Amino acid sequence: MGRWKIICSYDGTNFSGWQSQPSRDAVQDEIESALAKIFHHSTRIHGASRTDAGVHACGQCFHFDQDWNHSGEALLRAANTKLPSSIRLLSTLPVNESFHARFSAVGKQYEYHFSTREVDPFSTRYQWHISQAFDADKFRAVLPCLAGAHDFSAYAGKVNDAETPSKTLNTPELWNPGQGEWIFRVEGSGFLYRMVRSLVGTLVRVAIGKLPPNRIPELLEEKKRTPEVHTAPAQGLFLNQIYYADDERPGK
Amino acid sequence: MGRWKIICSYDGTNFSGWQSQPSRDAVQDEIESALAKIFHHSTRIHGASRTDAGVHACGQCFHFDQDWNHSGEALLRAANTKLPSSIRLLSTLPVNESFHARFSAVGKQYEYHFSTREVDPFSTRYQWHISQAFDADKFRAVLPCLAGAHDFSAYAGKVNDAETPSKTLNTPELWNPGQGEWIFRVEGSGFLYRMVRSLVGTLVRVAIGKLPPNRIPELLEEKKRTPEVHTAPAQGLFLNQIYYADDERPGK
Repeated sequence: MGRWKIICSYDGTNFSGWQSQPSRDAVQDEIESALAKIFHHSTRIHGASRTDAGVHACGQCFHFDQDWNHSGEALLRAANTKLPSSIRLLSTLPVNESFHARFSAVGKQYEYHFSTREVDPFSTRYQWHISQAFDADKFRAVLPCLAGAHDFSAYAGKVNDAETPSKTLNTPELWNPGQGEWIFRVEGSGFLYRMVRSLVGTLVRVAIGKLPPNRIPELLEEKKRTPEVHTAPAQGLFLNQIYYADDERPGK
Repeated sequence: MGRWKIICSYDGTNFSGWQSQPSRDAVQDEIESALAKIFHHSTRIHGASRTDAGVHACGQCFHFDQDWNHSGEALLRAANTKLPSSIRLLSTLPVNESFHARFSAVGKQYEYHFSTREVDPFSTRYQWHISQAFDADKFRAVLPCLAGAHDFSAYAGKVNDAETPSKTLNTPELWNPGQGEWIFRVEGSGFLYRMVRSLVGTLVRVAIGKLPPNRIPELLEEKKRTPEVHTAPAQGLFLNQIYYADDERPGK
């Protein structure tokens, strides 16, 4: 059996998330169903990241084991023909058995998109709309305190006891690709459940004057989520890239 | 009672079209419901164009009659607060009673968006994807024959006996805003039911080599729809602008 590493993108709007569900409306279910048609039997795939309902991906990674006597390009074409247009496989690579999409990952990059201009009906699936006066300088000023190794328990949706709450981030960036449009980008060794959305939701509260900036580092120190921490909505989040030892890595 | 002229945009993906439906899932239903909350009684609106299910608008126009003692800007803000983010009012203008959004219109502009590159999961709601080899020169070469006054019966979904099938178009344009992305723009005195989608669907058949280019003017002359005429899917179509006598007009 050969192992394949696949990179894929998806619009998460109409999916219940990455991970397979009894209702079969997860991204994983769609991909497994497409692969089953190609290989003529069921194929379990292993994703790098369990994105939530409504979260998008530009560079999710997964692997599976199957014999395939044709090229990776042929596999890509065959799968994309069978997938809905909301999911696209972007690349295929034969890898050796030691590779695991989740356990071999050494880092991830996410983007969170939001807007502070008038609501645009054509962007609402892909960004969070902020209607309050937004001070980008306040947002940027607290970003350096997030860099480095920290216990991010305060910024997690829930803490899984099996996982270390300590993660290492590069300094996150905020930039402005167009009038009133904002992209927050963060790279790190790993992320707790809902960590990016909890960071963005709380940083935005600082930028709209609802939370004093010093609470961002204090919450990190306190290691406990409080009602000051808000979770930004799913539709602004994009899983951009998974890093592996052989790839470009965070902290490069 | 004062009459208001409103310009609005909407993402048509999840609506049954512009025109009010018993199921109340039309764009008109949403707007009437928002206005009812503002005016505290039901308000019938009159749209310029009955866009189909899945068709988008950047510049749909409608009017209604209501007393309103505040500014147009206040009306805009109040309505947008009550509307879903998939519908936005863009401007409000008090007009005199002789204005009618549909009957005063002297022309319309539509755009049809399609793509000939790889499927992009984030664009599928807003463009048609063409997977065959596409020859833009063939598409453009037949556009001049559509300009001027013609009976467009061959390019209508169905012909309404009450309406003249003769419409006057400016020469439609096709351009290429990005690699493998295409926008077809057409302005005219009016459009028959599904006329833009029938034109695009059939022009694309010429561009992918499925229909000889001379059939485009011949079908116009024959004034009868045949199976050679295909209707492009709804999600690529945008109602861009409605022209009125006081506005910039087609043939300007």
